Amino acid sequence: MIDGCPAGIPISETEVRLALEKRAPGRNPLASQRKESDEAEILSGVFEGLTTGAPICIIIPNQDADSSKYDPIRHLLRPGHAQYSYLQKYGIFDHRGGGRASGRETACRVAASAVARKLLLTQNIVCNAFLEQVGEETEDLAMKARIEEAKKTQDSIGGIVGFRVTNLPAGFGDPIYEKLEANLAKALLSIPATKGFEIGSGFKAACMKGSEHNDLFIEDTLASNHAGGTLGGISTGMPLEGRVVFKPTSSIVAAQLTRGLDGSKQIFQLPEGSRHDPCIALRGVAVVEAMVVLVIADALLMNRLARL
Amino acid sequence: MIDGCPAGIPISETEVRLALEKRAPGRNPLASQRKESDEAEILSGVFEGLTTGAPICIIIPNQDADSSKYDPIRHLLRPGHAQYSYLQKYGIFDHRGGGRASGRETACRVAASAVARKLLLTQNIVCNAFLEQVGEETEDLAMKARIEEAKKTQDSIGGIVGFRVTNLPAGFGDPIYEKLEANLAKALLSIPATKGFEIGSGFKAACMKGSEHNDLFIEDTLASNHAGGTLGGISTGMPLEGRVVFKPTSSIVAAQLTRGLDGSKQIFQLPEGSRHDPCIALRGVAVVEAMVVLVIADALLMNRLARL
Amino acid sequence: MIDGCPAGIPISETEVRLALEKRAPGRNPLASQRKESDEAEILSGVFEGLTTGAPICIIIPNQDADSSKYDPIRHLLRPGHAQYSYLQKYGIFDHRGGGRASGRETACRVAASAVARKLLLTQNIVCNAFLEQVGEETEDLAMKARIEEAKKTQDSIGGIVGFRVTNLPAGFGDPIYEKLEANLAKALLSIPATKGFEIGSGFKAACMKGSEHNDLFIEDTLASNHAGGTLGGISTGMPLEGRVVFKPTSSIVAAQLTRGLDGSKQIFQLPEGSRHDPCIALRGVAVVEAMVVLVIADALLMNRLARL
Amino acid sequence: MIDGCPAGIPISETEVRLALEKRAPGRNPLASQRKESDEAEILSGVFEGLTTGAPICIIIPNQDADSSKYDPIRHLLRPGHAQYSYLQKYGIFDHRGGGRASGRETACRVAASAVARKLLLTQNIVCNAFLEQVGEETEDLAMKARIEEAKKTQDSIGGIVGFRVTNLPAGFGDPIYEKLEANLAKALLSIPATKGFEIGSGFKAACMKGSEHNDLFIEDTLASNHAGGTLGGISTGMPLEGRVVFKPTSSIVAAQLTRGLDGSKQIFQLPEGSRHDPCIALRGVAVVEAMVVLVIADALLMNRLARL
Repeated sequence: MIDGCPAGIPISETEVRLALEKRAPGRNPLASQRKESDEAEILSGVFEGLTTGAPICIIIPNQDADSSKYDPIRHLLRPGHAQYSYLQKYGIFDHRGGGRASGRETACRVAASAVARKLLLTQNIVCNAFLEQVGEETEDLAMKARIEEAKKTQDSIGGIVGFRVTNLPAGFGDPIYEKLEANLAKALLSIPATKGFEIGSGFKAACMKGSEHNDLFIEDTLASNHAGGTLGGISTGMPLEGRVVFKPTSSIVAAQLTRGLDGSKQIFQLPEGSRHDPCIALRGVAVVEAMVVLVIADALLMNRLARL
Repeated sequence: MIDGCPAGIPISETEVRLALEKRAPGRNPLASQRKESDEAEILSGVFEGLTTGAPICIIIPNQDADSSKYDPIRHLLRPGHAQYSYLQKYGIFDHRGGGRASGRETACRVAASAVARKLLLTQNIVCNAFLEQVGEETEDLAMKARIEEAKKTQDSIGGIVGFRVTNLPAGFGDPIYEKLEANLAKALLSIPATKGFEIGSGFKAACMKGSEHNDLFIEDTLASNHAGGTLGGISTGMPLEGRVVFKPTSSIVAAQLTRGLDGSKQIFQLPEGSRHDPCIALRGVAVVEAMVVLVIADALLMNRLARL
Repeated sequence: MIDGCPAGIPISETEVRLALEKRAPGRNPLASQRKESDEAEILSGVFEGLTTGAPICIIIPNQDADSSKYDPIRHLLRPGHAQYSYLQKYGIFDHRGGGRASGRETACRVAASAVARKLLLTQNIVCNAFLEQVGEETEDLAMKARIEEAKKTQDSIGGIVGFRVTNLPAGFGDPIYEKLEANLAKALLSIPATKGFEIGSGFKAACMKGSEHNDLFIEDTLASNHAGGTLGGISTGMPLEGRVVFKPTSSIVAAQLTRGLDGSKQIFQLPEGSRHDPCIALRGVAVVEAMVVLVIADALLMNRLARL
Repeated sequence: MIDGCPAGIPISETEVRLALEKRAPGRNPLASQRKESDEAEILSGVFEGLTTGAPICIIIPNQDADSSKYDPIRHLLRPGHAQYSYLQKYGIFDHRGGGRASGRETACRVAASAVARKLLLTQNIVCNAFLEQVGEETEDLAMKARIEEAKKTQDSIGGIVGFRVTNLPAGFGDPIYEKLEANLAKALLSIPATKGFEIGSGFKAACMKGSEHNDLFIEDTLASNHAGGTLGGISTGMPLEGRVVFKPTSSIVAAQLTRGLDGSKQIFQLPEGSRHDPCIALRGVAVVEAMVVLVIADALLMNRLARL
């Protein structure tokens, strides 16, 4: 459900579907072989190919969701998963899949970004995300090999996804509590499996001196971009650049010690044929890109209120 | 202005003042010698030592704010500062100090945290922040020496501040877009000069395998804390742990190339006697702690709505 | 989509359906003969009969929505309808029915209230709405006759719906901008076709003296209820009482002067067999009750944050 | 504190003060003789006569607030006042004046409206409020006499305040839950002492037929304005017209039965020399106008987001 979208943006179900395909598993041999539907139906908010100003409701049905094979482990806490914290919070244990903590929910973010991206296009703003690191590897072929290895060893591996926004006008973002990078950090840390966020120089800044780090104003631009595209939380016109780290997928084939719901000591073992992503960062690329698109679209709209 | 604070929390101006002292410069020989007022007056929301449920208005007057010595540089863009992005956004150039982008605004966050901390104390929740790294140094004495060196060389140096919340009950935080670590990331990236955020294993997770990273459920606890205290965005009862990086202070003594408001090439040089912090991370400790306190207090209140 | 509902509330599709039946047309011979579906499917947020804390998505399909017979009038502005203002706002003219301005949207409010009412029941809070006036009639039989007359003359008639909340604890509602009656007023004026709202004495208060209007505190209660159940926007423990007025239905059979989308002078005439409610206030009863339930449920939750 | 105000609006302390004078008591012989300060100091958000986009903080000090003469009645519930409901909500009894439930808080609304009105002026939108009725009188001289009589008899009298917005463009307001009249109703019912709200035909609509009530589209306008300026919650370009009713002032001189905080039966009698307004509706005119201005200004800003 996308609320607050201006009227007059051209969008089609095909565009939503194409966006979803970038995220879908079952295509990439390096990703989970789970088949997820790419079908998306727009129920409201679009008329004759244009947004109407009404909330845009998009339905993405689940088609490959038989969870019966998980029955034997339905009373066990899955290591690295959120069942325990949900149970503590809500007092309810829903054993049917990951629910709101499932990576499946990120399909909605990607679908929404298909609409937001069309809004950004009206100002030629372009958002990209890309795999930057897998384990300690940063070269394409080496990253691929590292994922293959994780798959072969029935384990998983972490990774880093970078993002870059170009043609971003100066003036996006707001002071103090609504800084552009703060909203990006929240959006990106809301993606399952993320453990950290950097803008510009990021953690390297700890080892830098002010005389190195300051980006100097040179004519119409800045001589460097350690800031990563904002000053005081507001975009400068330089590219917005940063990255986000994903932990290794929690679902692995190896047996792990765990606890039953009754508190008993147990062995947790995924049922045969369970599918999982050896490197969730790979799948995270489309989701990071989607969230960046959404944050920038929000900032674009809010910025319409900045001046008389 | 603190809105939404429950009635019945004991708080005094003295407690607010003590909180502010931890942040104030002019005390620590390693920090800026600027004298900032520690005075705080509670204008509303407290009666006979208890919060009343009304908004709590606290005034912290500026007493050391003569900006006349900055007159010669009032038409220059300060490298690393937000004047340019503010000007682009609002079309207005207010040369009198940093305004909303000034570190001075963080005094309000610390004052507010004095109240929020009293709320947390009712559940024995304790939040701490501490300097973890300055440049490449991580030992207390070496960090101190590194700051001295930055001061002596009239430059500045970056650093990392860690935080830790103990006695945090399971169940704080919300799914999807209101994850506890996402709200922390936003709160901490809203602090001026921050460039990155980590929860638990943080960027180290990129190089870890799932079999290493998963925290196993062992009896009443978890065998490790790579997650950093949450699963699915909701606290697990383990300590909440992470860190935030501060860039080196942008205000340095050395002359820097810059631009005038008229677009001309200029040399930017701080006036003699200007005060600045050689390591803003050192001052950031109190502010990080304050923001963590505020985020946890919000989560505590929101969690009252989670169950029937 | 109901967000923010606590976990642990028992709710079934049957209960939602029963709530919807009270609102549905096609049952009451005095209301529109349009057949609207009473089917409601709960898609999320409920597990084994209890709310889980996740958003509760309820789908109510439209089954009697063939709009082809309206084709001849699709380029005309319908008197009393919102097509014109929507067109001015969004630049888009969606001729297919009333869209978001259609009374059909109120089915969602009633469905949501089925859940909220279960929350109120945990504190024995009871909300009722009832028809108080039709035209100038205030007696049941006379009101019925007045509606029959409107139907026979192919015209429509206005009316007033009263509401009453009993067993409401003192302390619900918030000061200044979130007063309980202010939130009620907003909720009730958001119902299509409403033109006014009263709490307690309402417009009669204009002709009263303070010595008459003041409700005196007598032992554990108030001697009268001119206030209508709140003081300073916060409930007193007295019944919450007020009313809301509905204009006569805009859709009438008689021909009316209007304008085409091209600006031309036109005659607007509903197609033969069009169905409409002779008195929309009659149908409004269930919707007023639903909105009162929702406002009180929100106040109940917010009030959990009022004290330490 | 006004947040969200665009940069570039010209505003001065004098303009705020002039707005406050319209509301201030102690000027009009028919109103309370309490002296309230008209002084207003702008602490932030304005630079060189223009708003900067930062929050605008305006301070209006209380100068005539000696409450010692109320000491004898500090343990009594004041009939018609909010002490009881506040006590029930917050568990705290602050005997010093009315606090947040005091009419004094409305000065802030009027001050804020001085800024918002300047925003509306950029589109030539004009908001007016006026006394329409006092007791049963609707003529100026008769209303004045009725207030004199209330004053002489040491009682008070209710009244009705009308409002009218002209030059309002079509398209302001939003569908469903953010209808323009719903937001007006909330804003106006948030004013202390109000008991009801009408838009357009208001409660008269109960007695009207659809064939009378429908406003017909005639060329560029509507032939009547029973709707009161909106259709489907969105402005039509017609004047926005409605009214709000004020109860008679609760503070009257006559002795009234009440309860002590200890539950005992007591007589409540205002101390000699207490000042009160015989007709709070008279003072309400400036506040109603202020709230209408604020609602329309919000709608103006929100409407900037409606289209691509």
